[in-house]
Amino acid sequence: MIRLVDGVPAESLPLADRAIQFGDGVFRTLSIRDGGIPFWQRQMAKLAHDAAAIGIVAPPADVWLDDLRAHSPESATVKLMLTRGESARGYVVPADCQPHRITQITPLPPPVERGAGVTIRICETRASWQPRLAGIKHLNRLENVLARSEWTDLAIFDGLLLDRDGDVIEGSMSNVLLLEDGALLTPTLDGGGVAGVMRDVAFAAATGLGWQTGEARISLSRLLQAERVWLCNSLIGLVPVARLAEQSWSAHPADLTLTMQIAALAAKETQWLV
Amino acid sequence: MIRLVDGVPAESLPLADRAIQFGDGVFRTLSIRDGGIPFWQRQMAKLAHDAAAIGIVAPPADVWLDDLRAHSPESATVKLMLTRGESARGYVVPADCQPHRITQITPLPPPVERGAGVTIRICETRASWQPRLAGIKHLNRLENVLARSEWTDLAIFDGLLLDRDGDVIEGSMSNVLLLEDGALLTPTLDGGGVAGVMRDVAFAAATGLGWQTGEARISLSRLLQAERVWLCNSLIGLVPVARLAEQSWSAHPADLTLTMQIAALAAKETQWLV
Repeated sequence: MIRLVDGVPAESLPLADRAIQFGDGVFRTLSIRDGGIPFWQRQMAKLAHDAAAIGIVAPPADVWLDDLRAHSPESATVKLMLTRGESARGYVVPADCQPHRITQITPLPPPVERGAGVTIRICETRASWQPRLAGIKHLNRLENVLARSEWTDLAIFDGLLLDRDGDVIEGSMSNVLLLEDGALLTPTLDGGGVAGVMRDVAFAAATGLGWQTGEARISLSRLLQAERVWLCNSLIGLVPVARLAEQSWSAHPADLTLTMQIAALAAKETQWLV
Repeated sequence: MIRLVDGVPAESLPLADRAIQFGDGVFRTLSIRDGGIPFWQRQMAKLAHDAAAIGIVAPPADVWLDDLRAHSPESATVKLMLTRGESARGYVVPADCQPHRITQITPLPPPVERGAGVTIRICETRASWQPRLAGIKHLNRLENVLARSEWTDLAIFDGLLLDRDGDVIEGSMSNVLLLEDGALLTPTLDGGGVAGVMRDVAFAAATGLGWQTGEARISLSRLLQAERVWLCNSLIGLVPVARLAEQSWSAHPADLTLTMQIAALAAKETQWLV
């Protein structure tokens, strides 16, 4: 476990930091594998986009990369957090607020045992409606914490959050993809949810395969009728779903096709640390 | 400025704390005036309620009170934060997660210059819909930060957040009260917003005066037609609104009546530090 604040090894953050006071910041979770960071540029583009969306200027990608190069793990889970910085009291952002960057390096989790796919559930916790923050990977993640607190059964891989209208938004720690009439679909995230890098990558891969892709409102019953459902994020990659509620799915040729195409993209889009 | 973590003077919080990682905690803001804390028991009851609502056990009130008594300011703004504690990575809450309490003591802000009332605005930022967190004073406050970032004009006292349906929920840092046909009303907070202590106190005061009270869906047009509108929180007390959009209100006899009744309650419900 390595933690840096503004590039300097640190174990703590000033109490005045607005990440503590308000969850005022954004983050990314990514992996280092064989000394390389898959989809680094996409991660940095998202970080800059999400920061800008809440009025924070993200440091250049090279600054983060230098943090990682100073330690150059062969494999790791990396969490990058960018806070708005410190202020006295109250919501007003001082003009001189200086963002803090937190770089956290931990071991990779063990690989997911996929088999024909994982079992997932529907959460009681709903995805919030907040268009101003929809799609943004920000530090206000209490909803995900509560959703993930709903089960302890290790056989359950993730839980889905539905929105106020009952449409599927995301998993507690993943995006949702589905195959329907040969097209790769994912829930529209204009009211809530986090638009992760792997969601974009899966779309790029599908396009490379000549598949149609699209965002759509996905009701739970529509999801259950899909030909195939996957979860994705930067740590787990693409994980097929075998079971959800009364529905079950078998291994599908698209599992391998899409996984291989994503791997091909990763090979082209990896930032090497040394 | 005094800051304590678990009762010990501190300037920082461990990076592993879930308040930093996820905004995973709750808080209260209260005031110390003339060596006493108005509505202390109500504050502690709310803190315990809100903590329990997200699965955190709050320390007993006496523990917080000891923190404050060790410094015994004559007057102060106090922010109490309770985090779920530390964990490695991911949303799962470890079984041995130990909450941290943060006690922050800063000067009281200058008194609000009320005159016949303050000018407020409507925010572009909407109040989120998330029934699981509605009413709870939790540490995911990015929405309030964004709402408060919409204006810099010092003449604007606060901004109102409307929900997805266009109903009034709250101010960026206050609750909303209105007088309608002799009844004191406040927006229903079952989808979002923070149910502050002063909102309850104002209702208790109104009941003491023999007024009807109630929660209701309050559309913006309904608010604009109210006989009187107030904002409230534990720092500002009860503040009449003089101007909102095209509407303006003059001083109203209820301003004084309700303020005096709240003061009478405060006199009965103050926890003295020494």
